[in-house]
Amino acid sequence: MKKQLSVLALMCTASAAMAETAPKNVIYMIGDGMGPAYTTAYRYFKDDPTTKSVEQTVFDTMLTGMARTYPDDHTVVTDSAASATALSSGHKSYNGAIAVDTDKKPLKTMLEIAKQRGMTTALLATSQINHATPASFAAHNESRNNYDEIANDYIDNKIAGKLPVDLMLGGGTKYFIRDDRNLVDEFKAAGYQYGDDIQNLDQITQLPAIGLYAAKGLPFALDENPTRLTKLTSKALDLLDNQNKDGFFVMIEGSQIDWCGHANDIACAMAEMDDFASAIEKAKAYVDKNKDTLLVITADHSTGGLTLGAHGQYKWEADVVHGVKATAGTITQHLLESDDLKSVWNKYTSIAFTPENKIKLEQAKSMGDKALNLAVKSIISDTSFTGWTTGGHTAVDVQVFAYGKGSEQFVGSQNNTDIADKLIHFIEQ
Amino acid sequence: MKKQLSVLALMCTASAAMAETAPKNVIYMIGDGMGPAYTTAYRYFKDDPTTKSVEQTVFDTMLTGMARTYPDDHTVVTDSAASATALSSGHKSYNGAIAVDTDKKPLKTMLEIAKQRGMTTALLATSQINHATPASFAAHNESRNNYDEIANDYIDNKIAGKLPVDLMLGGGTKYFIRDDRNLVDEFKAAGYQYGDDIQNLDQITQLPAIGLYAAKGLPFALDENPTRLTKLTSKALDLLDNQNKDGFFVMIEGSQIDWCGHANDIACAMAEMDDFASAIEKAKAYVDKNKDTLLVITADHSTGGLTLGAHGQYKWEADVVHGVKATAGTITQHLLESDDLKSVWNKYTSIAFTPENKIKLEQAKSMGDKALNLAVKSIISDTSFTGWTTGGHTAVDVQVFAYGKGSEQFVGSQNNTDIADKLIHFIEQ
Repeated sequence: MKKQLSVLALMCTASAAMAETAPKNVIYMIGDGMGPAYTTAYRYFKDDPTTKSVEQTVFDTMLTGMARTYPDDHTVVTDSAASATALSSGHKSYNGAIAVDTDKKPLKTMLEIAKQRGMTTALLATSQINHATPASFAAHNESRNNYDEIANDYIDNKIAGKLPVDLMLGGGTKYFIRDDRNLVDEFKAAGYQYGDDIQNLDQITQLPAIGLYAAKGLPFALDENPTRLTKLTSKALDLLDNQNKDGFFVMIEGSQIDWCGHANDIACAMAEMDDFASAIEKAKAYVDKNKDTLLVITADHSTGGLTLGAHGQYKWEADVVHGVKATAGTITQHLLESDDLKSVWNKYTSIAFTPENKIKLEQAKSMGDKALNLAVKSIISDTSFTGWTTGGHTAVDVQVFAYGKGSEQFVGSQNNTDIADKLIHFIEQ
Repeated sequence: MKKQLSVLALMCTASAAMAETAPKNVIYMIGDGMGPAYTTAYRYFKDDPTTKSVEQTVFDTMLTGMARTYPDDHTVVTDSAASATALSSGHKSYNGAIAVDTDKKPLKTMLEIAKQRGMTTALLATSQINHATPASFAAHNESRNNYDEIANDYIDNKIAGKLPVDLMLGGGTKYFIRDDRNLVDEFKAAGYQYGDDIQNLDQITQLPAIGLYAAKGLPFALDENPTRLTKLTSKALDLLDNQNKDGFFVMIEGSQIDWCGHANDIACAMAEMDDFASAIEKAKAYVDKNKDTLLVITADHSTGGLTLGAHGQYKWEADVVHGVKATAGTITQHLLESDDLKSVWNKYTSIAFTPENKIKLEQAKSMGDKALNLAVKSIISDTSFTGWTTGGHTAVDVQVFAYGKGSEQFVGSQNNTDIADKLIHFIEQ
């Protein structure tokens, strides 16, 4: 074995040079529940079956490592609050904690540090904007369930006398416009533009701003508006671009990958992955045009125990998943409301309405909506050879993806707190 | 955000310099069935519960990327033969293929190329040494099930007039000592030492050699000899060390991680992971002493749809797994042979013999060995909050770990064929 010319030597020297300066802007994207089975499934879901090769996804182009997600106890399995706290502050905490430690004391988050350093800050989510993941960047609470208190913090948690977040886009009017307190009015009084129509993102023309487009979470991508996170991401990057010489920090969450995982609904999950992946493409294109920007993507945990292949079968049928045109919840509603199960079934899936499926759906319908919902999902999972082990989370390590200035820092196995520490280190420069 | 001093710049320059020369020796380790849930589980299995932090495993210290395992069709889910063919030759093929393409024509493997280049070659496995993974490095067959023909190939598949493999350690006397052909005698006639006692590895003192220590696969690590792959690895590295100026190529398989996964037996799987991890420690120590050596570790696929956390519970109980002292198959045998279920159960597990577990085991025993085996595993899985979706394989991407000379080539997402291409490129230098 002799000498080898190494292209890598050149690449490595180039990336080392890049690392000498911290990025000006940080785009941090979190796929809630997006364990390795989800990014794998998404590749095969997106594969063009007419070509011999399997096309790479945007995730494949940016993988740098994996992260350990365990919370600060010996349960091993984290919830979204503990992991978002780790990812925002660099400190492990207990399940349910919103940027507080195990003594329930506030932990400084990277968004707060960014604000202190004069950067523009933003939070985007497809959940309510005060849900666990975004909350852990700009609020502090002993429980993720205290939604009203968390929403209040987005006004009350002053950083050097200023509101913590310059741009919020997501859902949550239920929590922001309340009888006891109207936070939207307070934001307006503080100079924020307000948007409430996701079909008209031009309602917002400048920062600071808050857009709340649903009472709680936005509708599922598969049921309505399949590219809503992509559009919110484009809008946010337009607003953030070049408006502050000290740069910006934005956290963008694909919140509902997790919700589809909890529901064990594969078609729902793939539609959320598709919206999240398209949002990543927008962020990646921004980095291509703005070389002083770092894009880091990870997940907080995996959800549902998703597997491709199940019950001993060595296959996964992406075309079955493509044929499903609504979430199992929506299909269930339509089946409940109709006497013609066959036409509803054929409208929303490409799965044959076999005598077995007919009997299964009829029997389940007679038992009520929960049983029918389970039957719908069981037929979709069995036909596509999709496996699930839980309605909750699992502890498998999640992937880390990075692109742009400083991305070489995220290679290898790391703790989820390490990701935060590295980003905070950049933000503090 | 200002300038940042980067330690990474130095690290990167150092590794780029390393990449300029190909490694002399290649140690390639394959954890059969070892998807990301297995390396994650192993970390929490090995965690010292008396310390606050979760200790890193040898896998955590070497993660560089992940690999896509789909076979050459649209089933998405690979078997061990197709993936071993990809990992040995750089070509995707069909499930069942042993180093042949989709037209069943032989594909040149990296072991054959190594032999052609004058390197010493070796195969180690805890399965029979002619099982799919090792077979795909030194034999060619249209079906992994043709065990006799594959064993014959280890003599008949001459490379430049020589036998392909200088050292084989594993199981397989059933296939090598047959009525129609005694391959062990043929190996001896060709100058090979022969070993048949795993308690006396000193039977082999020099190369070439073959050690066959079971009729088929070696006993499970959890049932007997928990460090057999570790010991075989040490033995092999002792034999291979410095005996050829052109270096060596060795493939070492942790074969039975997969078998425990097929069985949905978590304690069995963790014992196999422990032996494999210890074998990796030996290989890593060899690289530390021999800087001209490259160690690459991956899996061929994941098995069983293993998850940590199941049925909605946010925990995984490693101590339950530690308390299980034999494989479910062995526990089942002992339960079948005894009238005192309680004392057998308490001998082999630390799980309480509750009235529910008693009834479950008694009822299952009355239904036969298969039902009893399932009941044993179901109690262990439910008590430890371990999930499974299948008795077969799943398509999730697997991890890639690399250490030593040239290891920086394995960063990021890659096809399983890319791993082979990079190693073949090194071997051809």
